[in-house]
Parts: sequence; structure tokens; C-alpha cells
Amino acid sequence: MKFLNQGSFTLSFSQKKWLAAIAVVFFSIMGSTQAAIAKTSPNLVVTVADVKNMRAAIKEDGQFKRTFIASKASVDEQIKRAIIVPMPQDGGGGYTHERHKKNYKLMYDAGIIYQLTQDEKYANYVRDMLLIYADLYPTLPLHPKRKMGKQSPGKLFWQSLNEAMWLVYTSQAYDLVIPSLSTKEKTKIETGLFRPMANFLSVESPQTFNKVHNHGTWATAAVGMTGYVLGEQEWVEQALYDLDKSGKGGFLRQLDELFSPQGYYNEGPYYQRYALMPFVTFAKVIQANQPERKIFEYRDGILLKAIDTTIQLSYNKLFFPINDAIKSKGIDTIELVNGVAIAYGLTKDAGLLDIAKQQNEIILTGDGLKVAQALDRQLEQPYQFKSVAFGDGNDGKQGALVVMRQNVNGEQAVLFKPTGQGLGHGHFDKLTWQFYDKGAEIVSDYGAARFLNVEAKFGGRYLPENQTWAKQTIAHNTVVVDEKSHFNANVKMGNANHPELLFFDKNEQVTISSAKIDSAYEGVLLKRTMALIKLPLQNKPGQEQSLVIDVFNIESNKAHQYDLPVHYKGHLISTDFTLDTQLTSLSALGKENGYQHLWLKAQAQPKAGLSQITWLNDNGRFYTSSAVMDGDSSLIFTQIGANDPLFNLRNENAFIHRKAKAKNHTFVSVLEPHGEYNPSKEFTISAVSSIENLSHQKVNNIDVVEINFVGNQRYLLAFNSANNIEKEQSNSFSVNGINYKFEGRFKLFSIK
Amino acid sequence: MKFLNQGSFTLSFSQKKWLAAIAVVFFSIMGSTQAAIAKTSPNLVVTVADVKNMRAAIKEDGQFKRTFIASKASVDEQIKRAIIVPMPQDGGGGYTHERHKKNYKLMYDAGIIYQLTQDEKYANYVRDMLLIYADLYPTLPLHPKRKMGKQSPGKLFWQSLNEAMWLVYTSQAYDLVIPSLSTKEKTKIETGLFRPMANFLSVESPQTFNKVHNHGTWATAAVGMTGYVLGEQEWVEQALYDLDKSGKGGFLRQLDELFSPQGYYNEGPYYQRYALMPFVTFAKVIQANQPERKIFEYRDGILLKAIDTTIQLSYNKLFFPINDAIKSKGIDTIELVNGVAIAYGLTKDAGLLDIAKQQNEIILTGDGLKVAQALDRQLEQPYQFKSVAFGDGNDGKQGALVVMRQNVNGEQAVLFKPTGQGLGHGHFDKLTWQFYDKGAEIVSDYGAARFLNVEAKFGGRYLPENQTWAKQTIAHNTVVVDEKSHFNANVKMGNANHPELLFFDKNEQVTISSAKIDSAYEGVLLKRTMALIKLPLQNKPGQEQSLVIDVFNIESNKAHQYDLPVHYKGHLISTDFTLDTQLTSLSALGKENGYQHLWLKAQAQPKAGLSQITWLNDNGRFYTSSAVMDGDSSLIFTQIGANDPLFNLRNENAFIHRKAKAKNHTFVSVLEPHGEYNPSKEFTISAVSSIENLSHQKVNNIDVVEINFVGNQRYLLAFNSANNIEKEQSNSFSVNGINYKFEGRFKLFSIK
Repeated sequence: MKFLNQGSFTLSFSQKKWLAAIAVVFFSIMGSTQAAIAKTSPNLVVTVADVKNMRAAIKEDGQFKRTFIASKASVDEQIKRAIIVPMPQDGGGGYTHERHKKNYKLMYDAGIIYQLTQDEKYANYVRDMLLIYADLYPTLPLHPKRKMGKQSPGKLFWQSLNEAMWLVYTSQAYDLVIPSLSTKEKTKIETGLFRPMANFLSVESPQTFNKVHNHGTWATAAVGMTGYVLGEQEWVEQALYDLDKSGKGGFLRQLDELFSPQGYYNEGPYYQRYALMPFVTFAKVIQANQPERKIFEYRDGILLKAIDTTIQLSYNKLFFPINDAIKSKGIDTIELVNGVAIAYGLTKDAGLLDIAKQQNEIILTGDGLKVAQALDRQLEQPYQFKSVAFGDGNDGKQGALVVMRQNVNGEQAVLFKPTGQGLGHGHFDKLTWQFYDKGAEIVSDYGAARFLNVEAKFGGRYLPENQTWAKQTIAHNTVVVDEKSHFNANVKMGNANHPELLFFDKNEQVTISSAKIDSAYEGVLLKRTMALIKLPLQNKPGQEQSLVIDVFNIESNKAHQYDLPVHYKGHLISTDFTLDTQLTSLSALGKENGYQHLWLKAQAQPKAGLSQITWLNDNGRFYTSSAVMDGDSSLIFTQIGANDPLFNLRNENAFIHRKAKAKNHTFVSVLEPHGEYNPSKEFTISAVSSIENLSHQKVNNIDVVEINFVGNQRYLLAFNSANNIEKEQSNSFSVNGINYKFEGRFKLFSIK
Repeated sequence: MKFLNQGSFTLSFSQKKWLAAIAVVFFSIMGSTQAAIAKTSPNLVVTVADVKNMRAAIKEDGQFKRTFIASKASVDEQIKRAIIVPMPQDGGGGYTHERHKKNYKLMYDAGIIYQLTQDEKYANYVRDMLLIYADLYPTLPLHPKRKMGKQSPGKLFWQSLNEAMWLVYTSQAYDLVIPSLSTKEKTKIETGLFRPMANFLSVESPQTFNKVHNHGTWATAAVGMTGYVLGEQEWVEQALYDLDKSGKGGFLRQLDELFSPQGYYNEGPYYQRYALMPFVTFAKVIQANQPERKIFEYRDGILLKAIDTTIQLSYNKLFFPINDAIKSKGIDTIELVNGVAIAYGLTKDAGLLDIAKQQNEIILTGDGLKVAQALDRQLEQPYQFKSVAFGDGNDGKQGALVVMRQNVNGEQAVLFKPTGQGLGHGHFDKLTWQFYDKGAEIVSDYGAARFLNVEAKFGGRYLPENQTWAKQTIAHNTVVVDEKSHFNANVKMGNANHPELLFFDKNEQVTISSAKIDSAYEGVLLKRTMALIKLPLQNKPGQEQSLVIDVFNIESNKAHQYDLPVHYKGHLISTDFTLDTQLTSLSALGKENGYQHLWLKAQAQPKAGLSQITWLNDNGRFYTSSAVMDGDSSLIFTQIGANDPLFNLRNENAFIHRKAKAKNHTFVSVLEPHGEYNPSKEFTISAVSSIENLSHQKVNNIDVVEINFVGNQRYLLAFNSANNIEKEQSNSFSVNGINYKFEGRFKLFSIK
């Protein structure tokens, strides 16, 4: 079975196919044998052994018992009422859609309560509902609200995705009540419901079932889990290895392709936590039924990495809102509650308990019990957030999502995004960044333009402004060339190209990363280096200062307009240059590509040298962006809101550095958190930047950024972002007649 | 001494004067005698008995000990450094200003640590600093940065207000270290510092000392406290009864005049908590030295009422931000920490401990110790917030500040403001309102336009926009006539007039209040009735619904334009009428009186009947404002930000109901919290209003508001807002041929 654990050695593609073919045959035989001899129930996510422990736990005080009591009360309330299984009729969000969703959740919960209480009334409720579904299902045509061509249709639901979800839950509900059912009932339910539905989702929907895509994962999980319950090992094989068992599709191929080796899912964390659900659920089921497959060790433990990466991609409990993401989604989503419980069950990692505690939700499974008991005993240890470059793409080499973190009077995080496009939900934001400090967004990403499930806002779907604003490049903190979006906002082009991570490196004081892309705009090379830095505060022993340094270099043979926005969160406090503010009328900044949504509020043309913009965040801290100006560039202050007839957009603020015409240009800036505004205690300290001067020069291949602080403390950050250098490469340069040397990619020099 | 407790019987003004004159003579003799025989130290806020308990407490674990350790560490750190007593030079916020402020705080803290540790080094530090001040003070002229005519000048500080604060703290610091001082040192300090300073603040500054105003309270407190320490009972008498001891000014007169009988201070809670400090401090000192004065029983316990009222005027820990108020100020301010400690020391009210716990700050006094020990023993009980009409003015009859509260899935509060002007910090916002729900502002007040102590924002002072925007009527939720502010924004006119509270009443379901004013605009009567209502939710047994009903009636002999804004907090979700939104350019709504700061974002002219506007607050709840439209009125959607060259204003949103031309008009609306938006758990419920129809009619003298809910549940709110009615007045009216009757001011009828 060792070939399932591919992390430790490498196979060529043809070798993999060959081995997969053997595996199919091998498992087909073995699986069927097992099913015939070892059928116990329940044995999906919750096993017989789990149930034994869970029954004991509800007799003792603790979080698990409290959750059980609450869940039982909720189920009791619901099963009092008549069972309703409506004829499928409505699309997403409509009545019949929601009713069928509620039904699977209720059957699952009732099944759990049945196992815990051994009270037949819960099993009978599930049985009665399943029998109704077993009568209904064979009569159903394709759903009347299906959208052929766009989504694979279902029968109970408008899309087969929902049908697969229904089956993932309902197969478990059935498994939980099997002990209470007569043979006749089982036959009726299996023949009328599970067999036709599994068949519909697999053999009859090959395009989805075989697809190496999140929708495929739901389908394979649903069919595979049903296969385990019904003793149909063949369905399990198909779920794992494609309908034709070639390994071209199926769950294992999805595990190979959909995550990078570091466990990053290329649509970003918002969709990663969503995609996680069928992966961890089905894997848990495989583990229970066929532990010899060592599914959690597959691909060097990719599933545990995926769970951990989802957590790593959060700040102050919320996911980094890259691509289409609802910004209030965070680590307490039910998908990650499940993921954390399963990961804790496997690893007993006390850091996961820290996350579980923040999630504040216990699930009624064997792993949920382990989490609850560990939390009761206060075994949690602080979860460690790290600075990591999460490689993108199945090989981890199609760009990367870079997270830099440190702690200076609160937690700082820089998210730097030289990732791939991330499919249809991806944004045209190559090399963008975000900054977080002291619990808050400071330099922000708009996320998705959507009010989830709010009917009045475009039916709760992605708003038209998601396309016209949120996905466009100007909505992000990266360079826009000639007011056009990256790849001309073409998804196919975006998916076909990706940035290249040049390096990611760190030491005690500096975390630094550099990346480039030459395909976002024809004939234009974009290259950005970002560093998160920790400095000792001059004259304040023991105190430290954070800085983010940003060097954005653009090269082209032709002259272009370059815009670099900073979407800042807070109230503008001051600028060290004169603002030409629009006082009595505003107009839109542009006509398309997102510019049509920006009001032009003010302009400025700072003289050559340093320009500083300070804002105050609600977290009580000041932030100053200091930039190197060439005397020719301008600054534009904007607010979102133009061409927004239905008030769909949030009215957020940005300033844009604009270089109107140049072939090559380098934007250089430093973001500096400082001081405190405390109107409650009536004090304000350090409301003014400590940076007195800033300069950038390229000496040989070396970028040198010099920062002068008030009081004459100076720092030089030198880095080498050439394509390929040797690890121990020796670099030297001279500034103001002084020679400097460093090895590798970078060095921070402190100069008195 | 009974005449000091005037709550229980009434005196004519001439009687009062006469009694006061007697009292002066009486107390002068008695006080001096006492001082001669009973001088102990310390005996101001902290007494010898307190010190004994506090010394015991720092030997035992608990909050008091922890606070002591932290305070001692801070003092230890500071007294290591050289004493700096600079020559007065800078105005507010400048170096010498801040240094002298730090010095008094440090001397006070060191004095406390000396008493607790009995370590002479702390006393010596205070002594050394006092000796330097005693050398310096006699040499000082008036402060170079004084602003004659505007503020009474100081010597250490630019205004005598700061000098008085300095003395309030430093007299206590001196009192705390007296036991360690030689007679020679005492003589030097008293002769060089305290006597001249007390003389300067009293005899030499009669205009401030005798003023019945918060600045006078600081001066009388400072001089009176110094009098107790130095055994100068005459100073105490002057502090209590005016320099000439006539009772025309002085502390007792301030207690008579500056609070209403319910303990409301007419500048509003933001300044009330500030004003509280010298009142409660001096009263505590009087209590320690002359308990026979029963100062805390004075005027029916006005000081305890003032402390309690300050707490009552908060929501979710923050003060209601009426008038000039920094919105982040709340119950954790140091003034109220002191007030709550002193009140708890007197009353042992466990509800105050709830507030103390939220304040999360222990003070090192005898009362602070009582609070700390009670919190250690978890004696706190939930503080009871109430629905109250706090009468304004010294007689409580100059309008009122009305607070209505209830709990329906979270706490609701309506603040209705038919108060007096509130002096120079008052806003022109007669009859305005605010609404709070589920922890958040829903219908909001801008508060003050100010970034406290942020130098870059107009030196940290009130911004120019405080005058041009924040004080103007359009910045509030009340009627603006002809685009002019109330009283034409004339403070003198405002102070000379006030609204009249017609009634405040409540029962289980309804809290209701009505008020009017005919002096805000010449020839225009404004009359508003607001009700906070709790209804059972139809078809949802056990669930309830909140509503706020608003009936704003305007009468005039001439035609005017009437604007009624609603400054809402949240994201606009939907309107049930067509919006004519400005897409590519915005212009300012007007030219003056605050209108110049509003961008006109959209307009609408809903047809006659019901108009509905729904927004979503960050608290996850939807809010719908349903209004009765006459087909002729229009709606204007605005955002703050025009004519704001330095980005001083927050860009908040409002909609304005506009009746362009009418003599009489009644605006009728209902605000309805509903549903939940939970993108984290991926559900949205009841995003749409349940109100189907709304109407208003005046039948005889009775206003009848009819609300029809979806599903045909109907309610009638009937009220009689005539000037004077009998308590048991019988009212009858008929609607749709049905007769209704009620007694008193109002009744809510439920109709199936």
C-alpha cells in the first residue's frame, strides 16, 4: 500500500497511471471481500466505538453533554411537526430547496440523537422520512429549475452539487439508524433512494463525478460513502479512481491536483474551507472502513496540511479575503469545525484546541468528543501562526500566497499575493498585498461584492459590481497599467498564466519575498518585493517598531500610465503636501475596469522627495505611508460609490500613486504603524511619523532602500531579486562612498 | 443642620437667602473650632482609617493588591528620574503644560504609595517637588499664553481651570505626606505654594470662583480642600457659600443650579462625567471632615443621583453622544471610576459593582478598596438601566432628556431630546432622537467633530466643522425649517428657550413621550411624539418585535420647507420605490447651515401610501423605516463629505424626508428591527419588513397610528398630546366606524 503515500518518493506520470491501475484491481477484490465480512453500523464518520464513548460522555458534565442537550432539544422540537417532503420546484434559496436542505440536516441530527439515546422515536422519524423520499425519488425528472450547460442538474435540487451534499449527510443518517430497520425497510430505502441517487450522481453524471474539481469531490464523497453503507465496494473504487477506475479522475486525483504540496487550494481560503468539507468527511470515512489505505498519510499528509493551511490563512479569526470572499467568514465556519475536530482526533495537537476553543462549537462525533473533553481539561496551547510562502498549483510552483507575520504591540500580518488566478472566483490582482495590525485590516481587499442570501441584493448572489468592481485590478493594491485590468480581465488568460515567486526568506528582524509576472500586461514586467520588518525603537529601550517596505518595479519598452492604489482603512489624518480637494462637486475617475466606481475626491502633486499620508484606524493606531516621489508623479484620493445605482458597494477610501507616462518606473514606499489615539483615556501619543527621509537606488543588481528616522537613526535594506542566485551568493554595493556586503538574498543594515 | 437637606421641604428664595446667611455665620464659628481640635492627616479623599484598611489589603491577594503593585512600579520608574518643574511657557498640550499635569499626578500617586508602604523615599520625592514649586510659585506672573477675556488665566497653566485641577490633586498629595514633613518644610510649602495659590484662585479670581459653572466647581473644590488641609476653615466657608459667603455662588449653589432634580447636567453626559470629578471629590472631602453637613444627602441626594444618571445615560458602555461629545467616551472614564467608587462606598449598591467591573479599573482609595474587595467576592448584580425622563434645568422643568429602553433579542434604547440648549457645547437639535439596538447605533448622532489631542487635526481642538456641521440642525434627526438651524444657530437664543415635555408615560408594552417647542423657529410649532413598543410576533409564539413610532407634527401660518433627516448606520439594502441615483457626478446639497457638507447621492418621490427603506447594520440585523407618504413629499439620500478640504468629517449616510412647501405637516414613521444576516453561518432570515401598511389620522384631539402587519395583524397606537389633560382623562375616537376608548395619555390596541 506504500504507493498511496507518495510524499516520500517521486513517480513519473506514466508510473503513477500504471500503479493506479494495479491499485484499482487490487482494491476492487479486497474491498468487496471486506464489505462482505465486516459490515458494522454505524461506521462512517461516527463508528460503533465512537458511539460507545459518546454515550458515556453524555452522562458526565462537560461541553459535549451541553451540546448534546441543546441538539436534542432542537431535534425534539422539530420532530414534533409533520414531515414535509415537497415536490422539487424552487431554485437556490427557494422554499423547496431550503426544505430539502433542512431535511438532510434534521435526519442527520436525529440519527445522532438516536445513537446516543437509543430512543427508537428518533430512528423512526428518520425511517419515515427516508421512506417518503424512497417513494418520491424514483418518480423525479431532472429539476425544473436546472440550468443546463451551466451547472450539472439534480433532481431534488436545481444543481447536482446540492444533491451530492444531501447524500453525504443522508447516507450518514441512514447508517446511524440501520440497527433499527427491518430488512424490508432497508430494501425499500436502498432500492428506492440510495441506489438510484448514487447511480444518478455517478454513472449518469460522469462530467461532474469525474471532474477534478470541488464539485467532483462532493459527488465522489457522496457516492463513496453510500458505497460503504450499502456494501458496494465498486462504488468506492469508482469514487476513488474515476468511473472507469483509471485514476484520471476520482478522489485521489482530486487530492493530487486540487491542493498544492503545502495544502493551499488555489481559489483561496474562503473557498478552501468550503472545499474542505467533502475531503475531510470522505477521508474520515475511508479511514474508518479501510484504515490500511492510510488516506491521511496520502501525499505526505496533504489533508492535514490543507486543514492547517486553512487556519494559517486567517487573521484575528477571519480568513484573508482574497478573490471572491465574504469578509465575515472565518475559522468558526462549520466546515473548519469539522476539519479541526478530525485533525485533532488524528494528531492530538494541542494548538488545534486553541482554534477549537475560538470556534466555540462542539460537534457530536467521536472526534468532537475528543475535542470537547480536551477543552474541558483546558489542554489547549496557543496555536502558532507562521510566516510561510504557500506554493500555488498542484506542483506548488505556480506562484505562491505569502504570509508574513510578527508581533510588535499586537500581531502584524502582510499577505502578499503572487498566486495563480484561482479559476472563476479569482480576482485580477497579481502581486497585490494586504496589511493587518492590532486586530484590524489596515491596507485592505474589498473581497466579494455580495450580500449572501439577501434577496433584495440581486437575489443574494454575486452582485453585478463583483464583476465591474471587486474583481478588477484597481480594486486591489497592485499596479494597473493604462487603466486596464490584469489579463484584460480574461479568466482564461489568467488561469493560463501565473506569477513566479523569486524568493521568500526571513531572519530575526526581516521577512521578505519577491515575485514577478510578465503576462498580466503584454510587454510589461511587474516585479514586487515586500518586507515586514521589526526594528528597535530609538531611545526607547525594549520597544519595537514595525515597518512594511514595498518596492514595485515596472519595466516596459513602451510608455504607459502606471497606477498603484492603497486601499486604506481608517480616517485620513494628514498629508505633508497640499491637497486639491473637490469641495462642491465630485466626478467619477474613469469609465471602465472599475475606475467608473471611484469618485475622485482630491488630487495632489507632491514635490520630489518624501511624501507622507497618515490615517487613523479604529484600532486606535496611526499609520503613515511614506513614499519616494519623483516630482512628476501625482496622488489621487478616491472613494468607492460612483455608478452604483442601488447602493450595492461599500464607500471605502483609497489613494492612488500615479505615474502618468513612463517606460520603467519603481514605486517605493514604507508603511509605518505608530502611536495611539485614546479619546477614552484622553491621550494621544506619536501621532506623527518618525520617518524623516526615504530613498531607493539600484546599485548593480542590488535594490537599496534607505530609511532615515528622526534622531538620525538610519537603516538600509538591501536585496537581490535577480532570477536565480546561489544560496550563499556574495553581494556588494556602495552607497555614499561606503561599501556594504551581504550573502544570499537580503540584509538589513543599521547605521548610526 | 436640617436646612442643608432641602429635598423634603420647600423654601421661598428670600427664605433661602436668609437661612444661608445664618448658616455662614454658624459654620464659620463651628468650622474653625473643629479645625483647631481635630486636625489629622491624611483626611481628604483618603483618611487615616482608609489607610489602615488599605495597608492590610496590599498584604492579601486580590485586585487591590495587583493595582497597588502596578502603581508602585510606575511610580518607582518615574521617581528614579530628575524632578522637572519647568518655567510655565506653553499653552494646552504643550510641553510645560503637560509636564505640570504629569507632576501633580505623580505627586498624588507617590503620596498614596508613601501611605501604603510607609517608605520615606516616596514622601521625600513629593516634598522635594513641592519645595521647588514653593520657590517658583511666588515669582510667577500670569501665564504668558493666557487668553484674557476668554478664559480666566492661571500662573502654572494658561487657564485657571488647570491650576485648580493641579491644586485638587496636589492638596491631596501634600495631605498624604504631611506626617513626614518638618514644621519648617510645612511652613515653606504652605507659605510659598498653597496659600498664594488658594488666594489666587479665590480672592484674586472672583469671576471664576463665584461662578455657578463647572469651572467654579473646580476652583471651589481646590480652595476648599486646601482649606481643610491647612486648617483654614474660612476658605472652606467661601468655597461653600461664595467669597462673600452670601450663598449666591459657591459649591452648594452649584449643586442647586447645575443639576436638575433628577441629577441631569444640562450639557449632556459627555460633560456631565467631566463635571462630576470636582463635585464628588470635594463632597467626599467634606464628608470626611464635616460629616455633620450630610453633603451626600444635600438636595435629596443630588450627588448620588448625578452619578447614577451619568451611568443611565450610556448604552453598551458608551455615553449617548449628544451635544459636543467624543463618541468613544464611556463609563470607563476615570471621573466615573471615582464617582462609582465613592457612590459604592456610601450605598453598597451591588448594581454599581456591575459598572465597576465593566470599568475594569481599581483606584487606590478607601472606596476603591471596598469596590475591589466586593469584586473579588463577586458580589456584583446586574445594573438596572431604566426608562426615565430626566428633567432638564435646575427645576427639572426646562425640557427633559428622555430615555426609553426595552429588551427584545438584545437591548433597545431610544434617546429623545427635548432638552434645553446646554450652553456653548449644546447642539441645535431640539426634539432629535437616536436609536440603539443589539449593542449598536442604528439612528445616530454625529457627536462632536474633533480628534482629541491630534495635533494635525486643528491642534486637537474642536474642528471648524464642529460649528459648520456637527452643531447644525441638519446633522441631527429632527426637523429643519427652510434649511436653517434652530434658533438660527444662536447660542444665546438657544439658552434662553427650551422645549416643553408634554408627557412621559409607560406600560408593559409601550414607553411614550411627547414634547413641543415654538421658539426654535419664529412662527413654527414643532411637536414630536415618540414611542418604543414591544409586540408579540404573529405566528411565532414567545417571540417579540420592537418598533419605534415617530409622529412629528409641524404647524405654521406660513408655508415653509420641512426636512426630517434620519442619519442611519449601516448599508442601504433596499427601497420599495425607485431611486434616482447620481451615477457619474455628485454635488453639494446646499450652501450653508450644514447643507454644504452633504453630497446629494439620490432622490426619490414615492407615491402616496407607504414608503420603506431597509438597511443592514454591522450588528447583523436589518432595520426598515416605514413612512406615510402624501405623494408630494420627496426623499433625499445624502453622504457627509462636501466642502471638507482636509477630510475632517466622517462620510456617514442619511436620508431626508422633505416636504417642500406646506404650512402644516406631519411626518409619521415606524422603525422596525428585523431578521438576521449571518454570512458566517450562511443564513439570512427575515430580510424584509413585516409591515404592510401604515397610516396616521387625527381624530378629535387623538393621534391614531395604524400599523398593518403581513398576515392581517393590526395595531392602533392612540395618544392624546394636548397640553394639559387630567390623569384619568377619558378619550374616545372612532376609526373605520369602530369606536375606541382609553384613559390617560395613550393606548395600544391590538386588532385581529
